[in-house]
Amino acid sequence: MRIAGLPGMILLIAGTMAASADPIVLRDMGSFYVGGRTVTLSGVSAREVQLPGGQVQRVDHNGTYAVEQMYVQYALPQDRRGKFPLLMWHGGGLTGVSYETTPDGREGWFNMFVRKGWDVYVSDAVERGRAGWAMPEVFAGEPVFTDEQTPWVNFRFGEASAWSPDPHARRPFAGSQFPFDAYANLLKEIVPRWLTTNAAIVRAYLDLIDKVCPCVLLVHSQSGTFGFQAAAQRPDKIKALVVIEGTLRGDATTVAALKNVPIAVIYGDNIDKSRNFSEQHASNVKMAAAVKAAGGSIDIIDLPEMGIKGNSHMMMMDKNNGEVANVIEDWLAAKRLVE
Amino acid sequence: MRIAGLPGMILLIAGTMAASADPIVLRDMGSFYVGGRTVTLSGVSAREVQLPGGQVQRVDHNGTYAVEQMYVQYALPQDRRGKFPLLMWHGGGLTGVSYETTPDGREGWFNMFVRKGWDVYVSDAVERGRAGWAMPEVFAGEPVFTDEQTPWVNFRFGEASAWSPDPHARRPFAGSQFPFDAYANLLKEIVPRWLTTNAAIVRAYLDLIDKVCPCVLLVHSQSGTFGFQAAAQRPDKIKALVVIEGTLRGDATTVAALKNVPIAVIYGDNIDKSRNFSEQHASNVKMAAAVKAAGGSIDIIDLPEMGIKGNSHMMMMDKNNGEVANVIEDWLAAKRLVE
Repeated sequence: MRIAGLPGMILLIAGTMAASADPIVLRDMGSFYVGGRTVTLSGVSAREVQLPGGQVQRVDHNGTYAVEQMYVQYALPQDRRGKFPLLMWHGGGLTGVSYETTPDGREGWFNMFVRKGWDVYVSDAVERGRAGWAMPEVFAGEPVFTDEQTPWVNFRFGEASAWSPDPHARRPFAGSQFPFDAYANLLKEIVPRWLTTNAAIVRAYLDLIDKVCPCVLLVHSQSGTFGFQAAAQRPDKIKALVVIEGTLRGDATTVAALKNVPIAVIYGDNIDKSRNFSEQHASNVKMAAAVKAAGGSIDIIDLPEMGIKGNSHMMMMDKNNGEVANVIEDWLAAKRLVE
Repeated sequence: MRIAGLPGMILLIAGTMAASADPIVLRDMGSFYVGGRTVTLSGVSAREVQLPGGQVQRVDHNGTYAVEQMYVQYALPQDRRGKFPLLMWHGGGLTGVSYETTPDGREGWFNMFVRKGWDVYVSDAVERGRAGWAMPEVFAGEPVFTDEQTPWVNFRFGEASAWSPDPHARRPFAGSQFPFDAYANLLKEIVPRWLTTNAAIVRAYLDLIDKVCPCVLLVHSQSGTFGFQAAAQRPDKIKALVVIEGTLRGDATTVAALKNVPIAVIYGDNIDKSRNFSEQHASNVKMAAAVKAAGGSIDIIDLPEMGIKGNSHMMMMDKNNGEVANVIEDWLAAKRLVE
């Protein structure tokens, strides 16, 4: 509806919990790169590679390149309620897409938290997605490609013995909330990863923190460790740390640094059915005790104990991802991080 | 501003040409994957690779993988004025980031055309960015990495002889509109590419067209050829084709198929100073004559002839990218594609 005489003016009349049918009103959206370094390669032997059809490709890696940068995309709501920017960091082999949309096409936490009034920054870590990746002279080792069976166990969808190449014959954990009809779409968003880039990833995350924080960090899986490390190095910049099934790895110094950073560690269902996640959970319980002993604040939130059942490791994509988002939002509100 | 009693209602009072200070009001934003195939590798020799620090990586590519999918991100304005979705396809070694934001942090064509009222879909083609990429058993040949000097000539920023490793000593074409202070950021958004994936890229683009079109295609550089091919294969689905300095490559059949698709080919400045672009321009002029002879509609728009000077091959990032966007919008309006 346009009303003459009031050009450029917006009257926004909306409830605080915008539903997915309501418009998303942004004061800005965009992206940028952060971090990385310039590397000059010289003296690398050039080679010729035979291509199909008889063409020859000359491969020459000598030159100066931008490497180890990180990609960051943001959406900033007009009606801001979160007191600080909310940074969402993805897990191993994944990109910011984890948070954008679910494999079955519902809204992800990116949209949900923008609708809740948070300035959301989703990133593709060094080596992943739009961050790009570097040649073997820079990235040691080889890229790891993820086959279709690996997420079944690693993302805690079902017992290893309950996997089948036939989608109809797979038997997920009873009551699992993952949208298995769209399992093929989950596979499409998994990208190659390296085993040797952790230090570069953390450097770029610190650059991001220095650029956009103070902030709230929401980390998942592999980035749990990165988030815990980064928070320990920039404790004054991190107003809260939300860890979705990630490992809190650190020493007494790390723990002491975090005493003023409220931390929530969130776990889904069927942890006891996975040796990896049982061990991670037990280790985090110990780390939580150490953080508390140092005067810190840390809550380990087991969703099933709140009556929220069936969540996998990919809870930001699960059918009840909105319910889990509300648990996070409520915790952030309890920490007085919501206006 | 909230007004009690009218929950969920939006009164939008804005001019038709929203400026960058105005909010962006979306009825939806999100992403999805399209295309690709499942491949099963067996009988591939597993290897062990030595990592720095003494760790050993076991490399085993046997298994079933999702490959050759494409990533698509969209923003759909509440106040829609473009009659059809607008698909923006990037050039070689690039991703959808080309259109999002400029290297110096201004708004890109993604935001600009959303503000103009177009449903915009930006993609990362097969092998690029969030689309992921596949192992050597699937992608023949080796990835090509782009060094810092290559865009200088390929993107027509200056004479090859005017390049210097020292940013302050580089001499761009007089009056160039590219934001050279942010050249380092341009390098960060260039990703590895392959020379052998064109067929897979086109297949995924056709899958995208089948999913979201009828539409308007805006293509750049390498994707000029892809867009011209795709339009020839789905002429009923393509309501207009805007080619930013891309090659129109086809035969009499291609040309005949396109007689009902309005085409604009847009060129920046200093074409005569580049042998590659001079040849491409001359070739496109011939192809345009063939399209017209077959009854088609094609305009070759040389921006300098309209008084718009200094544009590089990366005109969606140039300082006057808004002016170029307006040329495109005006052409689309002339083709009656704007409400």
